[in-house]
Amino acid sequence: MIGAASCVHSASLAQRPDSLSTVITALAGGVGAARLLRGMVRAVSASDVIAVVNTGDDTVLHGLYISPDLDTVTYTLGGLNDDERGWGLAGETWKVMEALERLGGETWFGLGDQDLATHLYRTQRLASGAPLSQVTAEITSALGVGARLLPMSDDPVRTRLRLAGGPEISFQDYFVRRHHDVAVEAVRFDGAAQSRPAPGVLDALDRADKLVICPSNPVVSIGPILAVPGVLDALSARREDVVAVSPIVAGAALKGPAGRLLVELGHGSSVVGVARLYAQVAATLVIDEADAGLATEVEATGARCVVTPTIMHTPEHATTLARVVLGGAAAPASSTR
Amino acid sequence: MIGAASCVHSASLAQRPDSLSTVITALAGGVGAARLLRGMVRAVSASDVIAVVNTGDDTVLHGLYISPDLDTVTYTLGGLNDDERGWGLAGETWKVMEALERLGGETWFGLGDQDLATHLYRTQRLASGAPLSQVTAEITSALGVGARLLPMSDDPVRTRLRLAGGPEISFQDYFVRRHHDVAVEAVRFDGAAQSRPAPGVLDALDRADKLVICPSNPVVSIGPILAVPGVLDALSARREDVVAVSPIVAGAALKGPAGRLLVELGHGSSVVGVARLYAQVAATLVIDEADAGLATEVEATGARCVVTPTIMHTPEHATTLARVVLGGAAAPASSTR
Repeated sequence: MIGAASCVHSASLAQRPDSLSTVITALAGGVGAARLLRGMVRAVSASDVIAVVNTGDDTVLHGLYISPDLDTVTYTLGGLNDDERGWGLAGETWKVMEALERLGGETWFGLGDQDLATHLYRTQRLASGAPLSQVTAEITSALGVGARLLPMSDDPVRTRLRLAGGPEISFQDYFVRRHHDVAVEAVRFDGAAQSRPAPGVLDALDRADKLVICPSNPVVSIGPILAVPGVLDALSARREDVVAVSPIVAGAALKGPAGRLLVELGHGSSVVGVARLYAQVAATLVIDEADAGLATEVEATGARCVVTPTIMHTPEHATTLARVVLGGAAAPASSTR
Repeated sequence: MIGAASCVHSASLAQRPDSLSTVITALAGGVGAARLLRGMVRAVSASDVIAVVNTGDDTVLHGLYISPDLDTVTYTLGGLNDDERGWGLAGETWKVMEALERLGGETWFGLGDQDLATHLYRTQRLASGAPLSQVTAEITSALGVGARLLPMSDDPVRTRLRLAGGPEISFQDYFVRRHHDVAVEAVRFDGAAQSRPAPGVLDALDRADKLVICPSNPVVSIGPILAVPGVLDALSARREDVVAVSPIVAGAALKGPAGRLLVELGHGSSVVGVARLYAQVAATLVIDEADAGLATEVEATGARCVVTPTIMHTPEHATTLARVVLGGAAAPASSTR
């Protein structure tokens, strides 16, 4: 890891001491983001953490409005998630899906009974005129989430993927129904141009002490957030204070299609591709030890590079990573050799 | 019961022998109708029974399209209903409602987990463009219902009740949320004038050998069906073959607000009021033994009157009643004294 030594700057992140008054704004997708955020709310006060969450994956199924990333983050921060399965709620039951199966209904998108209650609640509240940001505040409050979760927008923005030589499909069709096992040639965010950031989003970007781009898919999780008018500019203006965490480790995503998508869309499936994608918005990129050999290339894109273990096997790993990301602690020794 | 003796005509209903080839079309509301229909499919072949079902109570809750009367009839004919509770499915669980309660959601309309699957299925199919009649055929087929259930219309017709000196509310608001414990001064069927009978409805009225108006609320269960353009005329044309079963016994409804509503709307809470309401469409009214003393008054409205036990404590009672209604058997001895 000699090659990496020159670019390990975790010490420089530690200028600001770990403090209850450090306000953090994080851009978040699903599972990877949820895990890092769980670490963050342990590293600082939960009430000092604001997450701006991707809603490009939102969908309506069976008439129910479903916000997969908001729910993943909510359940994880509420301590309700199923860590073993990696998604959904612990102790979940599947009575409705079993009955729907008997009816011959569509069950490719598995909705647990408790999870369904969230969708019923959200759908009812939206139908009665409440914006998604308000409904999100209600749900997170009811489920004991201390951090503040903001949908990126109250307006509909929908991630659409054009398959190679084929049709354009929704994100959930791609991700769940087709198990992201198809080639994609283009991604767009339908409705983004007309959307407005949800109340509080631009403020959260302007006023945070530190900004974090969570280890989420840069194209389909962070991409939609950046596509909401005003967000890219606000984040770019804070570039020096933005730390991105690479979701790519050793050339592949830990979960999901980030690696494949990055290749298919011409960015290359490595932390260098991630660095290039974030060059405009993040002055610092945190990469895993496994990618230490690419640190010089990362720095060549104009980003500071921090090498540290990024795989969050446990909440403790997540807390350690959060401390490094927030600059509140030196990176573990292994990354400072 | 001397006074009733002159009007007991159950023998005259027995002209046509019980036969598999007798096609029955029944107008149906909820629980009372479901019970009589369960008797009918035992008395004749299920495939010879067509039920035209009220959809004026249909509602959208939590984004889900709910058809309470269609579901009650479906579950009962599928042998899936909870006879003890009197509504919903046997062995039902309430995981979703429990979780919705924790979220602070609206739970006044109890939706069991298996029941929810029906609503998810229906909502998804309607959203994909299938008409309610087709979705109903799919659900009844999946749940093993041998009879043919037709929604009265594929178009939205919504029963609205104006409270005395107060606002106009939906049927479910009246029936479930307010436990029909409020005074009503008017009922109307929003959308009825623009609605069309569902495919097969007018045919089923024209071609049936015998037509039955089930013991449902005349105002808010049968009323909406008759309000669909074409239905009243088709039924009136078959008046001689139409047998109505009174939902009123001894001046009150066995279940629900029929008695109170009839009084509030000026019809009087007795079988005589029912007879007057059905005078144009039914040549025969079946009333309970408890009302034998009113038989002469019933006949004065122009209807033949059959006195027989009408309370369906068990499926066997329902089958016996169905046989009397269909004229396939003499009424029990008690009514022919």
